[in-house]
Amino acid sequence: MTRQKLKDSLHNRSVSQSRILRFREGFVWQAAARKVYKDEPESWRGVTRTSLVGGADEIPVPFHVRYFEVEVGGFSSLEKHAHQHVILVVRGRGLVKLGDRQDSLSFGDVVYVAPWEVHQFRNPEGPEPFGFLCMVPADRDRPVLVREQD
Amino acid sequence: MTRQKLKDSLHNRSVSQSRILRFREGFVWQAAARKVYKDEPESWRGVTRTSLVGGADEIPVPFHVRYFEVEVGGFSSLEKHAHQHVILVVRGRGLVKLGDRQDSLSFGDVVYVAPWEVHQFRNPEGPEPFGFLCMVPADRDRPVLVREQD
Repeated sequence: MTRQKLKDSLHNRSVSQSRILRFREGFVWQAAARKVYKDEPESWRGVTRTSLVGGADEIPVPFHVRYFEVEVGGFSSLEKHAHQHVILVVRGRGLVKLGDRQDSLSFGDVVYVAPWEVHQFRNPEGPEPFGFLCMVPADRDRPVLVREQD
Repeated sequence: MTRQKLKDSLHNRSVSQSRILRFREGFVWQAAARKVYKDEPESWRGVTRTSLVGGADEIPVPFHVRYFEVEVGGFSSLEKHAHQHVILVVRGRGLVKLGDRQDSLSFGDVVYVAPWEVHQFRNPEGPEPFGFLCMVPADRDRPVLVREQD
């Protein structure tokens, strides 16, 4: 954690444990680092993850809120898992694959991904990054990668 | 449920239980009704609630995602509760009261409300409605209203 982030973080916790994470231009949040999306680098391209609440954070919460961003030409892993997740688009446009179905998504669209549904998010056309919030239970299983031919 | 909503709802469930809720101009979602915020009408003004995932929905999920909108001059109840919640602003500007602190909020800002923190959302200046997502655990306690002088 950089000195500025530590300072922001301490400031934000000065009133009990409640806190405000400030949004900055370019879909960056104060004191929340953009990180590499996940391991298995051959399964995805051009995706970053920003943990907004939960995860690396020290506050124990029953659900985690993350911001994922897919650059133009990028895609998340084609995967499935037992846990449910909910996404809500906040930047740009993209595609979601849900089982055999594919749909375009833009600002405000909500996707509920049911348990074990094979899914993937892609940004084939841009012109800007495709960004969405993703809410998941804190206690969740690890995703299983799916090969296109499966 | 209206006939159109039922039709939308059935369409959305045609691929397993996964579904997409389409965003419409004016912060309305397909097949998701705007409802009155809550009982105790004397404690709030000009607030609507739209359940996006969970709640009245038949899909059991461990957390609920709602969209709240506060019209210009409106405010939510000043309240507290044991459960945590997370909000993220998606429309307009407003104020959040967190304990003795008050902060302005705009697009993308995230608020984590800790257990038993007294809180309230207000839209004193507009010029447009103040809208935010609110994520809460599905299993939660009922909020306790707080009087200003408490």
